[in-house]
Amino acid sequence: MTGSSCNVAIRKVDISRQWETTDQVAAEEPLEIQVSSQIAAGAAAKSVSITMRTPGNDRELALGFLFTEGIIQAAEQIISVENIGQPDVHSGLRNIVRVETSPDVDLDLERLQRHFYTTSSCGVCGKASLDALRVSGQVSLANQVTVFSPEMLLGLPAAIRELQPVFAKTGGLHAAAIFGPDGEIEIVREDVGRHNATDKVIGALLEQGRIPAHRKGLFVSGRASFELMQKALVAGIPLLAAVGAPSSLAVEMAKEFGMTLAGFLREGTFNIYAGAGRIG
Amino acid sequence: MTGSSCNVAIRKVDISRQWETTDQVAAEEPLEIQVSSQIAAGAAAKSVSITMRTPGNDRELALGFLFTEGIIQAAEQIISVENIGQPDVHSGLRNIVRVETSPDVDLDLERLQRHFYTTSSCGVCGKASLDALRVSGQVSLANQVTVFSPEMLLGLPAAIRELQPVFAKTGGLHAAAIFGPDGEIEIVREDVGRHNATDKVIGALLEQGRIPAHRKGLFVSGRASFELMQKALVAGIPLLAAVGAPSSLAVEMAKEFGMTLAGFLREGTFNIYAGAGRIG
Repeated sequence: MTGSSCNVAIRKVDISRQWETTDQVAAEEPLEIQVSSQIAAGAAAKSVSITMRTPGNDRELALGFLFTEGIIQAAEQIISVENIGQPDVHSGLRNIVRVETSPDVDLDLERLQRHFYTTSSCGVCGKASLDALRVSGQVSLANQVTVFSPEMLLGLPAAIRELQPVFAKTGGLHAAAIFGPDGEIEIVREDVGRHNATDKVIGALLEQGRIPAHRKGLFVSGRASFELMQKALVAGIPLLAAVGAPSSLAVEMAKEFGMTLAGFLREGTFNIYAGAGRIG
Repeated sequence: MTGSSCNVAIRKVDISRQWETTDQVAAEEPLEIQVSSQIAAGAAAKSVSITMRTPGNDRELALGFLFTEGIIQAAEQIISVENIGQPDVHSGLRNIVRVETSPDVDLDLERLQRHFYTTSSCGVCGKASLDALRVSGQVSLANQVTVFSPEMLLGLPAAIRELQPVFAKTGGLHAAAIFGPDGEIEIVREDVGRHNATDKVIGALLEQGRIPAHRKGLFVSGRASFELMQKALVAGIPLLAAVGAPSSLAVEMAKEFGMTLAGFLREGTFNIYAGAGRIG
């Protein structure tokens, strides 16, 4: 599984001490899936999906996607599968899979688009996305110097769990929360999707006229992906604390934009992947 | 939080017995986000996102999405927010939020579409999706009678964990696996996304000429959403076993298509939400 994880320097924190160590994070890089039944005739392939994935088994990913979405119905409809595009920074794998299908496959793009719905992200690939954020006026949060204590952060998961009425009943919901440096939990929202729960708390801040939220932290009950870091950045929130693991791209983005990223916040410990200066 | 969870009848299983009880599952229903700066002039609003969400705080979800995706930059650009569309089956909440923005907001649809990438799903709303599956020729798997023993299922999480090299290093990856009724784990794939890991194992089955996989089960390390049930159905896999909780729509879909759905498969127990006849 070359390239599916990366080694990063972290600071590990528990209630009584902090120390420098290293951690492996799961790689997260974009893959574009293109499809065409006309490659032999020189026509351009159509892009049907761009997904943030862990590099590896990309051919299977593309074929499984096309099949489970009903674009192809059988293996016999696949004429060729090619890895093209640029190599990923870490994995070295190319970031486009182009699938040529037999002429009987209906690739009407408008029909295909009705099969998919959009989810939130900002661009075609990680690097392009970071560039896009810079261009669209997102500035580094490095100058936002609010400090959050380790003791307060360690207490967050239990405190927020208390405020999750639906999770208590179902065990099946993610939570996002906005908290202050004093540990006050100001907004908690639940959803089957982490991104939706995060949009709900940021939507609440927006309605309350409290953006940019430079003196707040964002808590999420799951893993820290690139997309969640992006949402925090747009809201001006300099710290993301996640119960789960971060992805490689989330760590890179936190460093790039002067943000603090804490992960594995559970069982009395957490890891700081970027921006340790805000925790003390 | 009216409507954010539903009560369902389940069979609970541990190593020595099975019994009937009830469980609460998190509600999962579609929400469409529409936006327009021309509502006063009579123009139709544009659909910018359809997301599977837990009903509640829909207004915040819509505003947070528009803001964190960069479509609006400030609360002052919001003129009105309306809940329209059909009421959800369970929550009774309407399934469209329509946001009217000030005329200075750039709502060029082509530009907006570049902001989003597609993820896998099959339609505008849960009901429409189930209809779409029926129309597109997906048939019930009720006649697929392969039986899986409780003991085998209870052993899956530990056995699959052993086969996850990247999770062991990072703690940050989802797994999907294909297993047989004898407990043999035939394919395991990892990814930062559950859907990607699932597409990878189904893509592998497709390449190996093994679809429909009527005598196999699909294991996922996270929650069981509507989308994962859909992918299993298209591959002809009659049983989905998830470490996490199912959503309401996943349960409905399993019942509709004669599939077996087991959830909370961990710590020596699991719940059967549909299709208990295949487990024994």
